[in-house]
Amino acid sequence: TAAQYFFVYNAFSFTFATMAAATVFLWLGRSQVGRAYRTALTISGLVTAIAAYHYWRIFESWGAAFEVRDGIVTVTGLAFNDAYRYVDWLLTVPLLLIELVLVMRLSRSETFTKATRLGLAAALMIVLGYPGEIADDNGTRALWGTLSTIPFLYIVYELFVGLGDAIKRQPVEARGLVKTARWITFASWGFYPIVYMVPYTSFSGAATETALQIGYTVADIVAKAGLGVLIYMIAVRKSEIEYGEAEPVAMR
Amino acid sequence: TAAQYFFVYNAFSFTFATMAAATVFLWLGRSQVGRAYRTALTISGLVTAIAAYHYWRIFESWGAAFEVRDGIVTVTGLAFNDAYRYVDWLLTVPLLLIELVLVMRLSRSETFTKATRLGLAAALMIVLGYPGEIADDNGTRALWGTLSTIPFLYIVYELFVGLGDAIKRQPVEARGLVKTARWITFASWGFYPIVYMVPYTSFSGAATETALQIGYTVADIVAKAGLGVLIYMIAVRKSEIEYGEAEPVAMR
Amino acid sequence: TAAQYFFVYNAFSFTFATMAAATVFLWLGRSQVGRAYRTALTISGLVTAIAAYHYWRIFESWGAAFEVRDGIVTVTGLAFNDAYRYVDWLLTVPLLLIELVLVMRLSRSETFTKATRLGLAAALMIVLGYPGEIADDNGTRALWGTLSTIPFLYIVYELFVGLGDAIKRQPVEARGLVKTARWITFASWGFYPIVYMVPYTSFSGAATETALQIGYTVADIVAKAGLGVLIYMIAVRKSEIEYGEAEPVAMR
Amino acid sequence: TAAQYFFVYNAFSFTFATMAAATVFLWLGRSQVGRAYRTALTISGLVTAIAAYHYWRIFESWGAAFEVRDGIVTVTGLAFNDAYRYVDWLLTVPLLLIELVLVMRLSRSETFTKATRLGLAAALMIVLGYPGEIADDNGTRALWGTLSTIPFLYIVYELFVGLGDAIKRQPVEARGLVKTARWITFASWGFYPIVYMVPYTSFSGAATETALQIGYTVADIVAKAGLGVLIYMIAVRKSEIEYGEAEPVAMR
Amino acid sequence: TAAQYFFVYNAFSFTFATMAAATVFLWLGRSQVGRAYRTALTISGLVTAIAAYHYWRIFESWGAAFEVRDGIVTVTGLAFNDAYRYVDWLLTVPLLLIELVLVMRLSRSETFTKATRLGLAAALMIVLGYPGEIADDNGTRALWGTLSTIPFLYIVYELFVGLGDAIKRQPVEARGLVKTARWITFASWGFYPIVYMVPYTSFSGAATETALQIGYTVADIVAKAGLGVLIYMIAVRKSEIEYGEAEPVAMR
Amino acid sequence: TAAQYFFVYNAFSFTFATMAAATVFLWLGRSQVGRAYRTALTISGLVTAIAAYHYWRIFESWGAAFEVRDGIVTVTGLAFNDAYRYVDWLLTVPLLLIELVLVMRLSRSETFTKATRLGLAAALMIVLGYPGEIADDNGTRALWGTLSTIPFLYIVYELFVGLGDAIKRQPVEARGLVKTARWITFASWGFYPIVYMVPYTSFSGAATETALQIGYTVADIVAKAGLGVLIYMIAVRKSEIEYGEAEPVAMR
Ligand SMILES: CC1=C(/C=C/C(C)=C/C=C/C(C)=C/C=O)C(C)(C)CCC1
Ligand SMILES: CC1=C(/C=C/C(C)=C/C=C/C(C)=C/C=O)C(C)(C)CCC1
Ligand SMILES: CC1=C(/C=C/C(C)=C/C=C/C(C)=C/C=O)C(C)(C)CCC1
Ligand SMILES: CC1=C(/C=C/C(C)=C/C=C/C(C)=C/C=O)C(C)(C)CCC1
Ligand SMILES: CC1=C(/C=C/C(C)=C/C=C/C(C)=C/C=O)C(C)(C)CCC1
Ligand SMILES: CC1=C(/C=C/C(C)=C/C=C/C(C)=C/C=O)C(C)(C)CCC1
Repeated sequence: TAAQYFFVYNAFSFTFATMAAATVFLWLGRSQVGRAYRTALTISGLVTAIAAYHYWRIFESWGAAFEVRDGIVTVTGLAFNDAYRYVDWLLTVPLLLIELVLVMRLSRSETFTKATRLGLAAALMIVLGYPGEIADDNGTRALWGTLSTIPFLYIVYELFVGLGDAIKRQPVEARGLVKTARWITFASWGFYPIVYMVPYTSFSGAATETALQIGYTVADIVAKAGLGVLIYMIAVRKSEIEYGEAEPVAMR
Repeated sequence: TAAQYFFVYNAFSFTFATMAAATVFLWLGRSQVGRAYRTALTISGLVTAIAAYHYWRIFESWGAAFEVRDGIVTVTGLAFNDAYRYVDWLLTVPLLLIELVLVMRLSRSETFTKATRLGLAAALMIVLGYPGEIADDNGTRALWGTLSTIPFLYIVYELFVGLGDAIKRQPVEARGLVKTARWITFASWGFYPIVYMVPYTSFSGAATETALQIGYTVADIVAKAGLGVLIYMIAVRKSEIEYGEAEPVAMR
Repeated sequence: TAAQYFFVYNAFSFTFATMAAATVFLWLGRSQVGRAYRTALTISGLVTAIAAYHYWRIFESWGAAFEVRDGIVTVTGLAFNDAYRYVDWLLTVPLLLIELVLVMRLSRSETFTKATRLGLAAALMIVLGYPGEIADDNGTRALWGTLSTIPFLYIVYELFVGLGDAIKRQPVEARGLVKTARWITFASWGFYPIVYMVPYTSFSGAATETALQIGYTVADIVAKAGLGVLIYMIAVRKSEIEYGEAEPVAMR
Repeated sequence: TAAQYFFVYNAFSFTFATMAAATVFLWLGRSQVGRAYRTALTISGLVTAIAAYHYWRIFESWGAAFEVRDGIVTVTGLAFNDAYRYVDWLLTVPLLLIELVLVMRLSRSETFTKATRLGLAAALMIVLGYPGEIADDNGTRALWGTLSTIPFLYIVYELFVGLGDAIKRQPVEARGLVKTARWITFASWGFYPIVYMVPYTSFSGAATETALQIGYTVADIVAKAGLGVLIYMIAVRKSEIEYGEAEPVAMR
Repeated sequence: TAAQYFFVYNAFSFTFATMAAATVFLWLGRSQVGRAYRTALTISGLVTAIAAYHYWRIFESWGAAFEVRDGIVTVTGLAFNDAYRYVDWLLTVPLLLIELVLVMRLSRSETFTKATRLGLAAALMIVLGYPGEIADDNGTRALWGTLSTIPFLYIVYELFVGLGDAIKRQPVEARGLVKTARWITFASWGFYPIVYMVPYTSFSGAATETALQIGYTVADIVAKAGLGVLIYMIAVRKSEIEYGEAEPVAMR
Repeated sequence: TAAQYFFVYNAFSFTFATMAAATVFLWLGRSQVGRAYRTALTISGLVTAIAAYHYWRIFESWGAAFEVRDGIVTVTGLAFNDAYRYVDWLLTVPLLLIELVLVMRLSRSETFTKATRLGLAAALMIVLGYPGEIADDNGTRALWGTLSTIPFLYIVYELFVGLGDAIKRQPVEARGLVKTARWITFASWGFYPIVYMVPYTSFSGAATETALQIGYTVADIVAKAGLGVLIYMIAVRKSEIEYGEAEPVAMR
């Protein structure tokens, strides 16, 4: 229906604006943290920038796939290219895990190992999920979904057990924030498989499509912009501890 | 009528220009305040930037929904997408409250708690108001409007009671400005529910639409650009106190 | 006639270029004045930037309203949106007065009071003038014009009496320039009501339209770009006095 | 003919590229001269930027006025808007004289007086020349051309007599360049009235048009980009004298 | 089929986003490494920027060559310009080898010799491969492919034998990374000839095309963005050794 | 044929990308050389920027002049504007010689004299060559080509005899590079008259056109981007000698 069409349409526009605003915020914030944390903010901003680009394209593709005149929605025959989402995830999900690792400032080799392992697992998870997403029958969907869950569980395990030690070594003032970052990641990521299962329900086609798009969109905002802001806060706090509180000097 | 059409059209163009100008002003102003206040200005500028983006889209959508030839207005069949407004609010209203909290420079934990609580209440208020805005009958409108008023009252309460203490701790030179900021917020925000009630009147459809658009537009300018300028002034004044008056040095 | 059409067309293009050039000049100039005067230049540049934006739109609207083929002008039926002018003034006229007050560097409270009062009076003047401008009969035109003159006279009074004292306190080297700025404001502003009265004459419709457009355009250039350059000169001179002449150092 | 059409077309494209390149050069050069000379370079760059903008429009207008298919030129009925040229001059000619005065670094009051007088004379010269340019008969052309020559002669007089004294006070190393700048101004400006007289010849219409466009274009390049480069060289040389040769320091 | 069409389409969009993001990352990273390594990062970023430009064009060309309506793919008659790929390689492959040489910071003359030799060999390899790529029969394809392999083998030889010595002189902390960079280059480059041989298989035309495009695309990402990130890591690590670990200073 | 069409098409796209990349490289490089060499890099970058602009236009003009559908090339009737090339040369060839003179850092007066003489000779050479290029018969072509050769020989003479002395005064470390720059200029410039003579051959029209375009394009890349990189290398090397090797300091 037109209401559903506009709901999704506006959600895409909203997400575009959010991602763009988050990018500006994170990149302007680079000058407010110590050198060691700039890369984390660079990457957080890249994640939201890439997402803004893809939501722009999703938004355009949605507008081209349907036409609304006098409140009636018709299909134009041009496909709505849903794959932009997976294309986006393939690029941003590894980066999200890398930014999480970077902000912890582990030893060099640990950083490298964790970032590589988590990054690869994340890419695998997305690649395995895609064939299911575009499948027409629910069996195929379930099969690939299950396969995709294996790397997903590995990531969750690493986040909670593998990085648990690392979190204990964080300065006490930042530990709470890092834990929040871990939880926000866990919670928002856990939301994706749930949305993925919407087509198993007995909703109508249009309702399923709407629920899917909105669900993924909400999760994206939390997982990208939300995490980005947290990373920024952790970086600011740790900078103040490690580089010393910026003493008030006369402005220049 | 054509006069109404152009009144709204010009109001949108005006607001776009105002928001864009405010963004430039606030971001150029970042270099004139102390480090601790830069985030507040970054966010104030983001709010007006986001609003400029949305007014641009609203403006285009308005231009596409109607056609004026030889002074006669006809409907093109393309819907005027009023939802951009709520999409905008969902993003900017929490940010507005956050910028108000930031400029007070409370303790870290207080900042976090207040910002979160006020931000969430604001988002809730907007979400609850939207179903009423697009409702066709006034009963539904009233129902959601009432629900939306609950978080609204909570925000008002927090602003006046919860933050009252914080305001007392502001340096005496800035206290007046902070109070003005609080009042301007209260006054402009109180205007929204009033505009919301315009459809209860017995104006014609076109008149109602016009009043609604103009009302929300005026309120947006005060609440976003107006507050932004105030935040800028508070930040400048507090910077001078805390970082020391910038002594005149030979320019470089 | 085609000559009249092109005269106005070229005047709009000219003004767009002038305003854009003035914006670049004023914003590049920010680095050449002391900190205390940067806000004045930021705002002067915003005024010309906003004007450039509006002249761009006026120019496009003019081009869309008429078509010239083989030297013959026909009306396309799309309205020439003259209101952009008032939309522009509503935003820039208060800013112009504020930049005048800022460059004087009064005490903080005086700055605030004067800027607010003059700004509001200016906005009122524009709002009251608009209904007259779009009126079809000259009676209505005269009525609103007269109402609009009241805040106008108040502004003139404030400029000459209220700010007279402030000007006496300016450093002697800058006093002449400040007086010139006041006079240029007075002279250019006084031109607007005169242009406003053109429709009372017995010119043909096209001639009236042409005279109106050209008159307002010339006045806009003087009042915005002209004043901006003066503000820049005052800011440079006062910076040299207060911050010390920039001694020649080896360039870096 | 097509050859004439393309000759003018390519001349416009060439001039656009030259003006744009000169702008980049002059503005990048600002960091290489002393503070006192930056305004001169800012303005030189503005002059070429404004010219680039106008040549862009002239180029587009030329392309829209004619159509070439299979080597045959036809008129589209859209007028070639030659007035862009005068619009451009009205803005840039005064600026050119001002940049010449600025680079001499006279006393403040002399700078002001000379800049104002020369600027106004230049504007008057252009305004008086325009009615002749668009006149259809050669009598009118001659009349306005003669009137326009009066301020022209005044400018020449000022350049050679009025500024002669000022040139004598220039540091000896820069005096040659300043004289060259004066001569280049004189020579290129003297070219304009000659081009203006082309229509008195008995060339065909198309040949006249071509000669006119090319003539003005060549003169514009010399008078704007050529003078700009000279101003840059003077500014560099005088900076080295007054601010001291930049000693070679290890690069950072 | 539509699935194949979209697979390639999305792969191009993905690669565009990746290359653009890598460019931003590498250029922002310039400020985080010592002066001697900035050129390496400048070039790495240029490589990805050039690739982003070409993937944009490839993407557009792909979209223009086919049309998909209601899930059915038709050919539009406009050729898919595959040559953008070779055009891109001709420019970027030499640059890739140069960036590898630069990051090793050999003596000046060694740098020059190696960069020139490797660069020329790379260009030759691409030029010889192109006639085979566009050949219709597999014989011609094989012939040029074989010729192209000669410079390819020379490059491999240089990388492993010629540069082996240089790698031994790298600081021990960076040696591993440099070796990885060499291997990643070798592995990703070895992939290209394999993809080149796809048409020898007995896949259908569409399948061959798809495999070819995807294969080259994956290889491009690894060889350009992947190597770029490695270069960045080497540059950061060597900067820390040679310029001293950046000690934590209070942020400004 | 389509193959020829695409060969030229891709060569234009390649050159555009190369020139744009060279511009970025040369302008980013400005911060890596001493002050005295910045102007040389500014100009080198301007040359490639201007070339990028013209190749963009040439590319568009080529695309508009022909249409390819299903592998068959047809002429659209719009002329391919080859003159962009000469327009470009007229601007860039003098600049190329000037950048060569500048990087030698001769005495001021020598710099001025050489730059002027060589610049004028170069412009003359181009202007004289153009009538021959567009001539239909080979006689005219030969005539103008011969005339154009006179200033060409003068430039060659100046480069080898006139500047020979200057080269001997270069620091020994840079002498080789300067000689290379001279040779590269000579070799690439010598290529232009050869390409110019292609139409004397008995190739078919299309083959001639293709050879001409490709020939000039290759020469342009070497003469502009190639020389630019050399200039950059000379500037870096001479900066290190004259300003002292940049000692490794802790990065900020
Ligand atoms: C486990 C699982 C999935 C997980 C997806 C996740 C966890 C996506 C996370 C995306 C993020 C974080 C994007 C924002 O940047 C799929 C693919 C839906 C398929 C079903 C099984
Ligand atoms: C109480 C209430 C409302 C309040 C809206 C407000 C308070 C909006 C504020 C918007 C701002 C500040 C936007 C500018 O950024 C609604 C939703 C109209 C619904 C009716 C009840
Ligand atoms: C008194 C008066 C008027 C005054 C207008 C003025 C004073 C406008 C100034 C505009 C400026 C300064 C714009 C440039 O930024 C109106 C409205 C014509 C209506 C008639 C009475
Ligand atoms: C004396 C004279 C003229 C002089 C024009 C001049 C001197 C123009 C200079 C233009 C410049 C310098 C433009 C570049 O920026 C006209 C108007 C042709 C009319 C005939 C008499
Ligand atoms: C040996 C060989 C080839 C090698 C191609 C290579 C090695 C390409 C590398 C491209 C890169 C690195 C691009 C990314 O920037 C060809 C031409 C396929 C033809 C068959 C033989
Ligand atoms: C001698 C000669 C010619 C020389 C052209 C040259 C030397 C052009 C150089 C162009 C460059 C360097 C462009 C790149 O920026 C022409 C005109 C073909 C005509 C035939 C005789």
